[in-house]
Amino acid sequence: MTANETTPIEMQGPSCPIPHHHTETVVIGHGSGGQMTQDLIRNIFQSQLGNAFLLEGNDAARIPLEQLNGEIAVSTDSHVVSPMFFPGGDIGRLAICGTVNDVSMLGAIPRFITAGFIIEEGFAMDSLKNIVNSMAQACNEAGVQIVAGDTKVVEKGSVDGLFINTAGLGMIPAGRKIGGQYAKPGDAVLISGTLGDHGIAILQARGDLGFESQILSDVAPLNNMIERLLDEIPEVHVLRDPTRGGLATTLKEIACQSQVSIRLQEESIPIKPDVNIACELLGFDPLYIANEGKVIIILPDHSSEKALEILHNSPYGTNAMRIGEIFQEDPGQVLLETVFGSTRMLDLLAGEILPRIC
Amino acid sequence: MTANETTPIEMQGPSCPIPHHHTETVVIGHGSGGQMTQDLIRNIFQSQLGNAFLLEGNDAARIPLEQLNGEIAVSTDSHVVSPMFFPGGDIGRLAICGTVNDVSMLGAIPRFITAGFIIEEGFAMDSLKNIVNSMAQACNEAGVQIVAGDTKVVEKGSVDGLFINTAGLGMIPAGRKIGGQYAKPGDAVLISGTLGDHGIAILQARGDLGFESQILSDVAPLNNMIERLLDEIPEVHVLRDPTRGGLATTLKEIACQSQVSIRLQEESIPIKPDVNIACELLGFDPLYIANEGKVIIILPDHSSEKALEILHNSPYGTNAMRIGEIFQEDPGQVLLETVFGSTRMLDLLAGEILPRIC
Repeated sequence: MTANETTPIEMQGPSCPIPHHHTETVVIGHGSGGQMTQDLIRNIFQSQLGNAFLLEGNDAARIPLEQLNGEIAVSTDSHVVSPMFFPGGDIGRLAICGTVNDVSMLGAIPRFITAGFIIEEGFAMDSLKNIVNSMAQACNEAGVQIVAGDTKVVEKGSVDGLFINTAGLGMIPAGRKIGGQYAKPGDAVLISGTLGDHGIAILQARGDLGFESQILSDVAPLNNMIERLLDEIPEVHVLRDPTRGGLATTLKEIACQSQVSIRLQEESIPIKPDVNIACELLGFDPLYIANEGKVIIILPDHSSEKALEILHNSPYGTNAMRIGEIFQEDPGQVLLETVFGSTRMLDLLAGEILPRIC
Repeated sequence: MTANETTPIEMQGPSCPIPHHHTETVVIGHGSGGQMTQDLIRNIFQSQLGNAFLLEGNDAARIPLEQLNGEIAVSTDSHVVSPMFFPGGDIGRLAICGTVNDVSMLGAIPRFITAGFIIEEGFAMDSLKNIVNSMAQACNEAGVQIVAGDTKVVEKGSVDGLFINTAGLGMIPAGRKIGGQYAKPGDAVLISGTLGDHGIAILQARGDLGFESQILSDVAPLNNMIERLLDEIPEVHVLRDPTRGGLATTLKEIACQSQVSIRLQEESIPIKPDVNIACELLGFDPLYIANEGKVIIILPDHSSEKALEILHNSPYGTNAMRIGEIFQEDPGQVLLETVFGSTRMLDLLAGEILPRIC
C-alpha cells in the first residue's frame, strides 16, 4: 500500500467513500482504521446493526439520559467460546445475551451495548456475517442497540478465530435494589430451568461427548422474562445467572456476599436426562456446568408460587423450579440435600473443567 | 480438579474465601469463574483497581446518575498492541488512555471504564501485575474508575499474550455539541503536538527501526487538557484523536462527515526529527502513523490563538500548532500544501502499514 496515494474517491450518499475492497476473508487491512476498516464496518456491521448512534461515526456514542432515572447498570464480558458455532447458538448470540443478562441481574432494563471484535487474519467473511446477524437478532429480541464498536485484526495465529467483547448499559428503575448481597433468611431459591445445557452442548460441538445427543445450548436473553417477574413481584432480593462455575459456584458467591447459608434439594433441581447422562459418563457435576439462559431468583418464600407461575408462562422459564431456601446459620455455606438423604457441601469451582465455554 | 470437593473454606473479612492458589503464571483455572478466578480478581485486579463499584461483586455495576445531566458518551476499544511493553507505555496505559480519549472526543468528561481481559495460559503473573498497575496509574491521572471487569483465560496459542478491551462512559455537560460532523468553513485546524511518536515507538520496540533512537510513545489521557480547553472555549466544533490511520485518515473522515474540505500546511505540522528520519528510512508517511496522545481540534479561527495558549500550558500540548483551515468547496477532500509549494490530496489509509499498533 502507498500511504500517500492520491486517487480521488467517489462518495456514497452525502458523506462516505464507497467500498473498494471485496474479500472472502478478513485481512489485516480490515483492522487498519482506514478505507478497508470503513468497508468492513459498512458492509458487515452497519448493514445489520446500524442505528442512529452508530451512524454518527464518532469515537463515542452520545446517548440522551431523558428516560433514565436514578441509576444505571454497567457490565462487560469477553467471549472466547470454542467452537464459535454450536447447537442452539453461536458466539454472536452468546455475546449479546451474556451482557443483556448481566445487566438484567441488577434488575436493570438493558438498553445499550458496545461491541469490540478481535479477528484473526483469514477469518471467513461469511462466518463473520452470520455471527453479526446472530447479534442483530439477539439485539432485536432483547430490545437493545449496539451504540459503539471497534474492530481489530491480528495476524494468523495471534487469536483463535474471533473473540468478541461486549459491554452493556441498562437503566435501574427507581427503588429497585437487587444484588447478590440481599439474600435473607427465609427466602426461597428458584431456578428458571434446566441446568448444564450450554456446557454440554459445547462439549457435543467439540466432538467430546462420545455419544449422539440433541442437546441445545440454552443461550437466551432473559431480560423480558425478568422484567415481567419484577413488574409483578418487586420484592425479589437476588437475581444471578449461573454461567461459568455453574449453579454451585454462583450460589456459593451469593452465600458469601449475603452472609447466609443456602440449602438445596437435589431432587428438585431440573436437569435434562441427556445432560445427566453426559455428566455421568464424563465425570462432571452438572451443578458446576455453565448455563447461558438461566437465572437464579432469591425472594421471600411467600412469593415463590406466583414467581414460578410467571416464569412458566415465559418461553425461557417453562422448567422453572423452587430448589432451596436461605438460612441464617453457617454463613457462606451451600448445602445439597442429596436424593440419597445425605448432605453435601458445595464449594466454589476449584480449577477449570471446561475452558472456553463462553 | 474435582467439582464436588467439600473442604470447608476459611473466610476473609465478612464475605469471601481466602486465596488458595499462588502461581507464577496465569493458568487455565484463572478463567474458570471459580476459586482461582476469585483469587486473580482479588490479588491482581481489586488490589490495584479496587473501588466500591467493583467490590460489590455483582454481574454489573450500579452507578448513580445524580451528577449526570443531559447526555452520556459511550465508547469501546480492543487493545492488541505488540509488543505489550514499549518505550513510553504499555498495553495497560494504552487501554485506559485510548478509551478516556475516545469519550473525551465528544466533549464528555470520562468517568467510568469497563475492562475485559483475554489472557493466554502461561502469561507471567508479574507482567499482568505491571500492566494492571499501569492501568491504575492512568485511571488516577484521568480521574476515572474501572467499574466492571471480566477475565477469560485461553489455551496457549489461542491468543498472543494478552488483549484488553475497555469501554468508557462519560458525562456530556449540558449544551456541548462536539463531533466530526460539526466542522464549518472558516474554522481552523489545530493539532495538540507532534505526530507519529506512538507508531514509531512501537516499531522501535519491535526492533524494526534499523537504527538507535529514543522515541517514546505519546500515550496519554487527554481529558484534563481538553476540559480546560472547553471551559475557556466552549465553541469548539470537532475533537478527534488521530489514532489508527493517523492525521490524514482522521481528517478525511471529518471532511466526509462534515461535508467540507480541509487544507493543511505541511510546514506547520509538528513532527520530531527522529520520527521524520524513521519514516523516511522505512517509507512511511508520518501523516498516516498512529498517535495515542494527540487531539485534532477544529474551532472558529478567532479562537485559535487562545486555544494554542491553553494547550501550550498543558504537559500534553506543548507542541500544539495551527496546521490548516476548513473550506466549503470540494466537500470530502483533504489537501496538503507541501513544503515544495505543490498540493497533494490525502485519502484514507488504504491497507495496513502497522498492524497491532494499539
